[in-house]
Amino acid sequence: MPVELEDYIKEKAALVEEALRGYLDFAAGAPERLAAAMRYACLNGGKRIRPVLMLSVMEILNGYVSQILPAACALELVHSYSLAHDDLPCMDDADLRRGRPACHKQFDEAAALLAGDTLQAYAYEVLIRGCDKAGVEPRRILKLSKELSRASGIYGMAGGQMTDLSGAALALPDLQKMHERKTGALLKYAVLAPLYVAETAKPQRQALNQYAEAVGLAFQIKDDILDVEGTAESLGKTPGKDLDQQKNTYVTLLGLDKARELLRQEMSKAYEAAEFFGARNRLLDIARYLLERKN
Amino acid sequence: MPVELEDYIKEKAALVEEALRGYLDFAAGAPERLAAAMRYACLNGGKRIRPVLMLSVMEILNGYVSQILPAACALELVHSYSLAHDDLPCMDDADLRRGRPACHKQFDEAAALLAGDTLQAYAYEVLIRGCDKAGVEPRRILKLSKELSRASGIYGMAGGQMTDLSGAALALPDLQKMHERKTGALLKYAVLAPLYVAETAKPQRQALNQYAEAVGLAFQIKDDILDVEGTAESLGKTPGKDLDQQKNTYVTLLGLDKARELLRQEMSKAYEAAEFFGARNRLLDIARYLLERKN
Repeated sequence: MPVELEDYIKEKAALVEEALRGYLDFAAGAPERLAAAMRYACLNGGKRIRPVLMLSVMEILNGYVSQILPAACALELVHSYSLAHDDLPCMDDADLRRGRPACHKQFDEAAALLAGDTLQAYAYEVLIRGCDKAGVEPRRILKLSKELSRASGIYGMAGGQMTDLSGAALALPDLQKMHERKTGALLKYAVLAPLYVAETAKPQRQALNQYAEAVGLAFQIKDDILDVEGTAESLGKTPGKDLDQQKNTYVTLLGLDKARELLRQEMSKAYEAAEFFGARNRLLDIARYLLERKN
Repeated sequence: MPVELEDYIKEKAALVEEALRGYLDFAAGAPERLAAAMRYACLNGGKRIRPVLMLSVMEILNGYVSQILPAACALELVHSYSLAHDDLPCMDDADLRRGRPACHKQFDEAAALLAGDTLQAYAYEVLIRGCDKAGVEPRRILKLSKELSRASGIYGMAGGQMTDLSGAALALPDLQKMHERKTGALLKYAVLAPLYVAETAKPQRQALNQYAEAVGLAFQIKDDILDVEGTAESLGKTPGKDLDQQKNTYVTLLGLDKARELLRQEMSKAYEAAEFFGARNRLLDIARYLLERKN
């Protein structure tokens, strides 16, 4: 990744990190162990790719970053709760998360469950309180909140997870629907949330919609391809795990060649949409970074 | 309970039930198993005491019941999610809920976890969408949403549960704080939410605050006393369970006599606050129903 982009991402991620730390610094009297489990689950060295994307879109729309930062934090709180719950024994039963013990290993299952529940509840308080303080109009804050609820609910992340868990073999349209929900919905929220706050014209909205859908889809295909063609060294995990577990992936369904072809198509759509905002811009950089990565 | 009050509660509970059924009737394309688990966890024959209380307060304030019904449903969605999660093996490990298999027994643990997560997310969509449709001003919907988030978060329900789970022996102020959060916060939200929507004067607000706090506290003391003095027949469960499990209760901490004395004090406060709205009114009836019950 070009150094300049790296700096840009680092700077934006640091902004989000600082805001999250502030929000998770509870007053005396809050149950300490719960607060600690929430911080552990959220302040975990995550790349903050969704919030960074959100702030970048806000900048491209010439909106105030301070007015979207609370939504970026709320989104990350929701993402963090989902990881803490995903790692639980009844779900993925993962002992490690980013090289550290998963939340339920560091604390215990009940604490990880409650920490996740509380992170989700807190997302709405952070969004509403933060946006109100930043002067966002009430009607716009409601839109941000409602769309976060939808993106993480039955038609979004949680619905996609349920379909994924079922383990049934999926046809291509169902596989796409599953991924659109499971990982696509929050990515899409990251790209579209700034539209709910900043003034925008229709062509901008169309470009961002196309960008959000193409990036979301391509991101998942790329993930599936990397699982097959990546080396253990570059991935930092064992490649071929999806194949072994007979998971529904673009590669198992389409084969590697067709999956690559579909990835190329979606990348073109994403880049085309990004270029609406200029021949070189951050959205284009970030799409390239996400879709041309090696791990 | 007087027949007239029984009819009143039934009528209001039916209104909530119908609205909840409508909200949980998802369009085709929603993951069916998740939708089924959500319905199972929420449409479970619950008494809907919190929503009924909310609607009663709205009537006493001469507000439009339709404008608070979405918040009543959202509150019940949050309450339902907490029960589905509470019953999980890592929490109370309860096989039964209201005489039926608990959600994780009827489905499985992952489904119960996801159903709870999704019910929580959905609460905010229901609240925002429903209130908007009912013509509630955006600023008031934001207040309703923010307070629901607080009542169910680290300073509310989830925080109280975490303290309760810790099992540490608590002194009286800490026991009260724990209950204020664990069960009191959502009860208080039920009483105070109408204030965020209907126009009210300060004396009404003060009376409702006193009512909410006294009912919340007295309700828990009553529960603890019933566990000791109730018969298995009237309770429908084994009495003395709290004592056996050395749980933190008002009775274990204060002894039965002092607990009864504290209950009487809080009942007086609740009744006094209710009488602000007239010598006979629904809030008084409901407080009596909750605090003079035999099971």
